Amino acid sequence: MVATSTVERLALDSLPLESGASLSAELAYVTHGTLSPTRDNVVLVPSYYTGTHDSYRPWIGAGGVLDTNRWFVVVVNMLGNGVSTSPSNGGAFPLVTVRDQVTAQRLLLDHLGVERLRLVLGWSMGAMQAYEWAVSHPDRVDALLPICGAARCSPHNHVFLEGVRAALLADPAFAGGAYDAPPVAGLRAFGRVYAGWAYSREFFADGTYRQLGYESVEAVLEDWAQDHAARDANDLLAMMDTWQSGDVGRGRDGHEHALASITARTIVMPSTTDLYFTVADSAVEASLVPGAELRPIVSDLGHLAGRPGVRAAETEAVAAAVRDLLGGAWDR
Amino acid sequence: MVATSTVERLALDSLPLESGASLSAELAYVTHGTLSPTRDNVVLVPSYYTGTHDSYRPWIGAGGVLDTNRWFVVVVNMLGNGVSTSPSNGGAFPLVTVRDQVTAQRLLLDHLGVERLRLVLGWSMGAMQAYEWAVSHPDRVDALLPICGAARCSPHNHVFLEGVRAALLADPAFAGGAYDAPPVAGLRAFGRVYAGWAYSREFFADGTYRQLGYESVEAVLEDWAQDHAARDANDLLAMMDTWQSGDVGRGRDGHEHALASITARTIVMPSTTDLYFTVADSAVEASLVPGAELRPIVSDLGHLAGRPGVRAAETEAVAAAVRDLLGGAWDR
Repeated sequence: MVATSTVERLALDSLPLESGASLSAELAYVTHGTLSPTRDNVVLVPSYYTGTHDSYRPWIGAGGVLDTNRWFVVVVNMLGNGVSTSPSNGGAFPLVTVRDQVTAQRLLLDHLGVERLRLVLGWSMGAMQAYEWAVSHPDRVDALLPICGAARCSPHNHVFLEGVRAALLADPAFAGGAYDAPPVAGLRAFGRVYAGWAYSREFFADGTYRQLGYESVEAVLEDWAQDHAARDANDLLAMMDTWQSGDVGRGRDGHEHALASITARTIVMPSTTDLYFTVADSAVEASLVPGAELRPIVSDLGHLAGRPGVRAAETEAVAAAVRDLLGGAWDR
Repeated sequence: MVATSTVERLALDSLPLESGASLSAELAYVTHGTLSPTRDNVVLVPSYYTGTHDSYRPWIGAGGVLDTNRWFVVVVNMLGNGVSTSPSNGGAFPLVTVRDQVTAQRLLLDHLGVERLRLVLGWSMGAMQAYEWAVSHPDRVDALLPICGAARCSPHNHVFLEGVRAALLADPAFAGGAYDAPPVAGLRAFGRVYAGWAYSREFFADGTYRQLGYESVEAVLEDWAQDHAARDANDLLAMMDTWQSGDVGRGRDGHEHALASITARTIVMPSTTDLYFTVADSAVEASLVPGAELRPIVSDLGHLAGRPGVRAAETEAVAAAVRDLLGGAWDR
């Protein structure tokens, strides 16, 4: 298979969902690099909240964090993100859980003729999907790298998201999702609430935002307001529903039992200043995965520490973890 | 002067404000205990965000945290809180800074014939006013006990408040403050956003909310929504403006210089899990106040750890600090 970076689409006919409903959908994905003849060089990267296949580009390329000279990198857009089937492009949209996303992605691997993943990794909601992969299909995942994520949406994380959701719903222009014009005031409020959670105390106190090109604290808030004003409200809420659904332990005798079943070589990579995917939660989860290493990204960027392309030091930390997980020293 | 607990009102005619504007207002306050003949047993307690004179009642009484057998306790409603002059009861309301609140409270002490405060203490915004007292009037403050507060509103704290504000303003029923009916959707969203910040990760993860009588995480969110739906939107924003204005260093060569000028015996009492008045910020501030002791409240209640009447262990921590600051071992 030849390298490509155009968006491809896999039709999923009546994808069975956890809820009992089903969804006919298209799963949009991009591949980079070349699939080896033995199909043993595949790295899977699920998208994150408000992210697309394109968001991981800073990590992908010849000699990059995900080196396309060696690896066949499959970047998949989660259902609901506006590229794959979503409220904004597909009409009625049921709850799609993190586990449902993995079901869809498994069908994609089957379509590609890929049995095993050398590595599944992702940032934030991408990490939630990566965990779900390692629990759902231990026989198909060699290595796992969750970055600023978790195996389940913690209660506090749920509460933070409920606040963000409430800000959007306070705008009657949302109209229960049946808006004609976008609920701009609600979307802007959504962004301004979110901004307080995305970074850290230090990011604001120490003026770190200037390193990211913001002139002021208000410029950060305004950027988040504008960014979200341009997004589709129903897509934002669909992805939020997915996020809040995340729990590898559901129906599997709970969180501890599910994490204990992971066989992938694992490095758990929280940011030391993440306010919702906290290092404390990651430490617990790393302790429950057999042989896992907890390797925090020491950063003042909060949750954003792990987002691709934000800052070189954090990218290098991720690159080192990828090297360790894909390196020749380890083989199975 | 005889003990009383009825609300009294001091008329302030053309209170000069930092902005250059002035405000004619009534300052509402309550006193508990008996003023000694030498007027040397006064403890001042400024109100906190959405609090009133009544909010501190769990601490006040014979043998209580603030023992009315010994101390004359003056609890003052900050301007904007709905009891003192506020948007909801007084019409046009300019920016009243934390420093302006202290100006108003100084006039109250003058009115009462009180020169010196044995102690000024408060929780949250009450702590901000207490710090401002100790900097503005070092000659009148013997001891200072800021609980879950700070000498200035940190940038991250400002951002959190902007999120809360945005959620309210997303409701067009707010109508730029000229609402006839309350903007209920916006007020409810305000409460739901706020709830994520008020407690801690542990509070939600460990089910600590059950100790406070909540059956579920959603019950916490709904309580905050309902509580704020019953409040006046303009009062909430006026107090928020005050909060965000807090900075003992403004016009005084900055934060460090201002804190270094404090002469009061000081115990700085953050909660170990406070998400916006962080223990890290309090540690810095305690290090800048000559002789101050940093004495964190070890608690999983987040910011709420210091709110009067929430839990006995935290109340005892506050009581011990009050005893140490008012105890006989120390005299000046």
